[in-house]
Amino acid sequence: MIKNHEQSNSGTVYFLLLAFLAISMVTPTRADEGMWPMDRVPRHYLQEQYGFTPDDAWIEHIQKSCIRFAGSGSASFVSPGGLVMTNHHVGSGAIRSVSSAEHDYIKDGFLAASAAEEIKCPNLQAEVLMAIRDVTDETNAAVSEGMPPETARRARTQRMDELAVAWGEERGLHAETVILFGGARRYVYLYKQYDDVRLVMAPEAGIAFLGGDNANFEYPRYNLDVSFFRVYENDQPLKVEHYLRWSSEGAGEGDLVLMAGHPYRTQRLATVDHLRFVRDIEIPCKLAAYNLREVSLLQFMARGSEQRRVGSGPLLRIQNGRKAYDGRLAGLYDIETIEDKLESQERMKAFVRKNPDLQSTYGAPWRDVAGVLGDAASYWFTYYLLEQMRQPFGDLFDVTKKLVRLETERTLPDIDRLPEYRKSEWDSLSREIASSAPLNLELEQVRLRDGLLTLARVLTGDNSVTAAALLGGKAPDVRAAEIMARTKLADPQFRLSLIGKGRPGLMMANDPLIKLVIRLDKSARAARKQYEDKFEARLQDAYSRIANIAFEAEADGVYPDATGTLRLSIGTVASYEEGSTSIPAMTTLGGAYQSSEHHASIEAWNLPERWVRAEEKIDKSVPFNFASTNDIIGGNSGSPAFNRQGEVVGIVFDGNIHGLVWDYQFTQQLGRAVSVDARGIIEALREVYDADRLVSELLATQN
Amino acid sequence: MIKNHEQSNSGTVYFLLLAFLAISMVTPTRADEGMWPMDRVPRHYLQEQYGFTPDDAWIEHIQKSCIRFAGSGSASFVSPGGLVMTNHHVGSGAIRSVSSAEHDYIKDGFLAASAAEEIKCPNLQAEVLMAIRDVTDETNAAVSEGMPPETARRARTQRMDELAVAWGEERGLHAETVILFGGARRYVYLYKQYDDVRLVMAPEAGIAFLGGDNANFEYPRYNLDVSFFRVYENDQPLKVEHYLRWSSEGAGEGDLVLMAGHPYRTQRLATVDHLRFVRDIEIPCKLAAYNLREVSLLQFMARGSEQRRVGSGPLLRIQNGRKAYDGRLAGLYDIETIEDKLESQERMKAFVRKNPDLQSTYGAPWRDVAGVLGDAASYWFTYYLLEQMRQPFGDLFDVTKKLVRLETERTLPDIDRLPEYRKSEWDSLSREIASSAPLNLELEQVRLRDGLLTLARVLTGDNSVTAAALLGGKAPDVRAAEIMARTKLADPQFRLSLIGKGRPGLMMANDPLIKLVIRLDKSARAARKQYEDKFEARLQDAYSRIANIAFEAEADGVYPDATGTLRLSIGTVASYEEGSTSIPAMTTLGGAYQSSEHHASIEAWNLPERWVRAEEKIDKSVPFNFASTNDIIGGNSGSPAFNRQGEVVGIVFDGNIHGLVWDYQFTQQLGRAVSVDARGIIEALREVYDADRLVSELLATQN
Repeated sequence: MIKNHEQSNSGTVYFLLLAFLAISMVTPTRADEGMWPMDRVPRHYLQEQYGFTPDDAWIEHIQKSCIRFAGSGSASFVSPGGLVMTNHHVGSGAIRSVSSAEHDYIKDGFLAASAAEEIKCPNLQAEVLMAIRDVTDETNAAVSEGMPPETARRARTQRMDELAVAWGEERGLHAETVILFGGARRYVYLYKQYDDVRLVMAPEAGIAFLGGDNANFEYPRYNLDVSFFRVYENDQPLKVEHYLRWSSEGAGEGDLVLMAGHPYRTQRLATVDHLRFVRDIEIPCKLAAYNLREVSLLQFMARGSEQRRVGSGPLLRIQNGRKAYDGRLAGLYDIETIEDKLESQERMKAFVRKNPDLQSTYGAPWRDVAGVLGDAASYWFTYYLLEQMRQPFGDLFDVTKKLVRLETERTLPDIDRLPEYRKSEWDSLSREIASSAPLNLELEQVRLRDGLLTLARVLTGDNSVTAAALLGGKAPDVRAAEIMARTKLADPQFRLSLIGKGRPGLMMANDPLIKLVIRLDKSARAARKQYEDKFEARLQDAYSRIANIAFEAEADGVYPDATGTLRLSIGTVASYEEGSTSIPAMTTLGGAYQSSEHHASIEAWNLPERWVRAEEKIDKSVPFNFASTNDIIGGNSGSPAFNRQGEVVGIVFDGNIHGLVWDYQFTQQLGRAVSVDARGIIEALREVYDADRLVSELLATQN
Repeated sequence: MIKNHEQSNSGTVYFLLLAFLAISMVTPTRADEGMWPMDRVPRHYLQEQYGFTPDDAWIEHIQKSCIRFAGSGSASFVSPGGLVMTNHHVGSGAIRSVSSAEHDYIKDGFLAASAAEEIKCPNLQAEVLMAIRDVTDETNAAVSEGMPPETARRARTQRMDELAVAWGEERGLHAETVILFGGARRYVYLYKQYDDVRLVMAPEAGIAFLGGDNANFEYPRYNLDVSFFRVYENDQPLKVEHYLRWSSEGAGEGDLVLMAGHPYRTQRLATVDHLRFVRDIEIPCKLAAYNLREVSLLQFMARGSEQRRVGSGPLLRIQNGRKAYDGRLAGLYDIETIEDKLESQERMKAFVRKNPDLQSTYGAPWRDVAGVLGDAASYWFTYYLLEQMRQPFGDLFDVTKKLVRLETERTLPDIDRLPEYRKSEWDSLSREIASSAPLNLELEQVRLRDGLLTLARVLTGDNSVTAAALLGGKAPDVRAAEIMARTKLADPQFRLSLIGKGRPGLMMANDPLIKLVIRLDKSARAARKQYEDKFEARLQDAYSRIANIAFEAEADGVYPDATGTLRLSIGTVASYEEGSTSIPAMTTLGGAYQSSEHHASIEAWNLPERWVRAEEKIDKSVPFNFASTNDIIGGNSGSPAFNRQGEVVGIVFDGNIHGLVWDYQFTQQLGRAVSVDARGIIEALREVYDADRLVSELLATQN
């Protein structure tokens, strides 16, 4: 699955870091490469290649039909009654949050027989992009000649924030700043946010992820990785003007398929040195942490059935991340990846050499990147563990960290706050902190232990005092047990009671977990500052120069690196050749039964009971999954796949293993996006789940 | 289980490294601490504490009843007909080697109904210690005054080797040199070796390791971790004079229990700095490699039932190692471990300060240890991966490495050969290289991939050329697949055909695996040389001075660190208190049923079918496992537990988690050895397995 398996702590800070330019300097023909912002849809390419020219109304319609589930993936409206379709693995956090030991909707699936039975999911927020405004000139106007770089940067940030807040308030929408092309273009995006999202239907995890880790990132596939929710407003189903109709025909091999979703991050402009850094430092550090957590989680899950239930979600995420990093690593060890990159890099350098003006304006950014990375190995892992990795110490630690930082940042002027603690974020932060989503404290203890253990390994040498202080002379497992036995933070009411009380309030609470977080916070902030100053800012500067050189070389047909914002991807349903094996573009429902039988001894390949019972009723020739050439990446999960009429033909849920290197480089020969076919969804809903209410609502949209 | 989860490649080289002195300077009362060589049995302590004074005949009898299974553990003769008892997990490699997809004796167990059905195990060699000779003075006589240290070291090695070979030839036995107390005492040990060892009985892995990884190193336990073999000579069961009789009474709480086996390695004299090095560098490096392999192996096993079968053995080893290192790490993070060590270290330093002669003779060995460790972090992992870790690239790679080195070392004078490739080792090396023990090539490919991946991570920076060359610009998985598809080395006949052909013969074979091994061998030898010169030799020197200081401080009651040679351990059956929980000394067969039911949802806790069927017949009150204070460590697995009459009361198979830190420090408060009770063995053999032939043979020995 292509879920975001890693993301930075903050929304905003992220846009400042990673929004660089990706371009097609590698291959002379672009093919279907590109993640296009909705205001930069490549109409010429679509016209030339596919004879299709989307108009403004079409683009607006697609844009407003699409949904972002921040932090988990993409989705879309598929009925006028606010019905939302996404992947099962995108919705699984929400499904899990309304499950319990008695009602395990992950294992058993869920179907609301009526609107009254639809279950409200805590912490699930749907966001719809309503408007985009280019604020590049207005922002740059805040900078006067001769300003020192840091002052200029601050001035730009402040001006963008002001513009965003003003426009957001004017329109009554949530505003976000978006920086593309290494700062060459700056935008404000306005979102309508919906907080009441209810679960309508989820299949069993057993069919949503048939084959489990074994099948992940593989193809052919047989997964019903889909779930349905509904957005409510004022306790009523939301009436929407823009939604995608259901295709009556589906898509076949060779057909144009479009996808619109929120790819999280690409680094397509990364230099050769940077790829090596990712290969030799970043991914190995990440995999070391992931491997430890996977092993630890499996031990936890082996303790009993309830542990198995609560551990299954975290396990999926970790296994998905591990397999994704493994695949990416494989791509980076492939000399062709490095050589292709080298070639395009050399071509850009040659272009600069031929244009002395460029040279004097932009210097030698490739060398500057190498310089930044040269000494980053020593601090990168500490930064990663303390500030970038997702919940390295568990959910309870994470929410406590948010509480501690909120109460600390509260006292600063808004502009000086860490971006994710600005006033605009307080509402959602408070909701998160006081969330009543269930926490398994036994699991939290394991995760705290793992985090402390990893930390103790990382904070050796100069930092060893910190690690010793954190552990208090105890083994990580003993320390974690001690803290978990005494903390009161598992109670959401207790957390809520501390919001607004400031640091003194936190100190008065005399809670061992708060103390641990406070003690670690100094190191975490120091690691972040070191990273931001020595790594991020300097890389951003170098990459913005590379982006500008690329602009000058090839002004046309450029798209920005992914930034978690809405993008359109273009592709066709396509088979491929792997070695001497021909991989078909499409699979069928019958294939799910065959594959399950073929892997009979593997639990993850066992079909759920309902599927076994429905075998006779199902039309096995109905398409189930398909592969296509769309340029997608983590965060695209749940993006609708649709035809030129904007009709749903499927929903993307994965890429194959050859697509994992797309983080750094798009390749169309073997890399594929993998989707559930719309026809397979309807057949399963009808024959396996008897979900007539849902089927009627979907098919009623057909033209 | 306390299997050796890690060992160096060679027998002899190991004795040179790790044979230091362990002493009781920490606690004023020794308690049951000590791993006593058979020529240093602490008769006074036994007399004072237990009123038991073993005579020479008793000691010889125990010594010659005990067996070493080199590389896997300990065992003992338990009948005059050459019947051998060991742990299931010690015998599991052999059991596995005679299993197949059709006959899975690991899963289903095995019982030979008659002598004719006993199955010969390839590569299983039983060794019995026949004689010990102190050659300290003869060895030292080889050194003349003023010899440079390296020359002296070489002279000593050569003299010891000569003495060993001469005595071995004279007696027609296998000779090994053993260095104890950091070189203060030197020995030749003579072994009788038996190559025809046949499987008699093995229970199902499901009861031998009930609870699996979940129960490993935990207590209370319910494991029938026992298996029976028989030594043959000239195709007839061996008639033995020395064997342990079966106790008719067993042992109860508070009873003296003795154990004799082959503890592999302790580091009880390690300095505080050294413990920190182990904690911050050694174990984290090892765990990183172990975690990767565990995750990878679980993915492999998820591919199907045959993969699950062949992967289960390696998985056990890896999980056992991982849990052992986790436990050791926990012990080392405990400030008490460090403080206790610091205290005894300070006491020794004070002793030196009071004796200026000692100071001038021995210098400041603690500071020297710190100096050696100071810069070892940079090369330790490379050495570990290339020369110390057990089969980091898989079994096929390992056997190929042996072949390549044998053919390379062959051309050198014996004294210049790597110790494990001296002429005396050629027979067993050739047997290993040409062994027909089955190899699963799919698994070997996974292991090769894991090794290459780990190597690529380690060989960055200065070494990156090597890693790139090894991978040939391919991803590790692609490279491993390529090599495995083309190598012919899986065929034992092919390997056999290359023995004696020298390096030219190897080159002519034009085999990709041989080429890989040869390419890596240069780095491996360089890493080993660096380690031996910069680490091992200098540590050995410092520790031999610490050992000598300890000798001077406390001449009496010292025992040497473990060296894989026969040692006697003293203890009593004893309960303990864990927090507020009282842990009983003994468990019963009934407890196995209760525990299995309590953990019903966990596969590893499911009792085998035979046990379920036998539930009504079994006497549930019969003792099953017991805890005792014997000082044991990895390598002791399979050691018989016996009473002062030398009668078998059980067989040790594990230590609890608190005993893991015994590598560095013995503690009697919580640490325990864990054994199968002799009475539980008989009850199970009789009622569950209907093993009447075996029971009769065992009970016929009773007095």
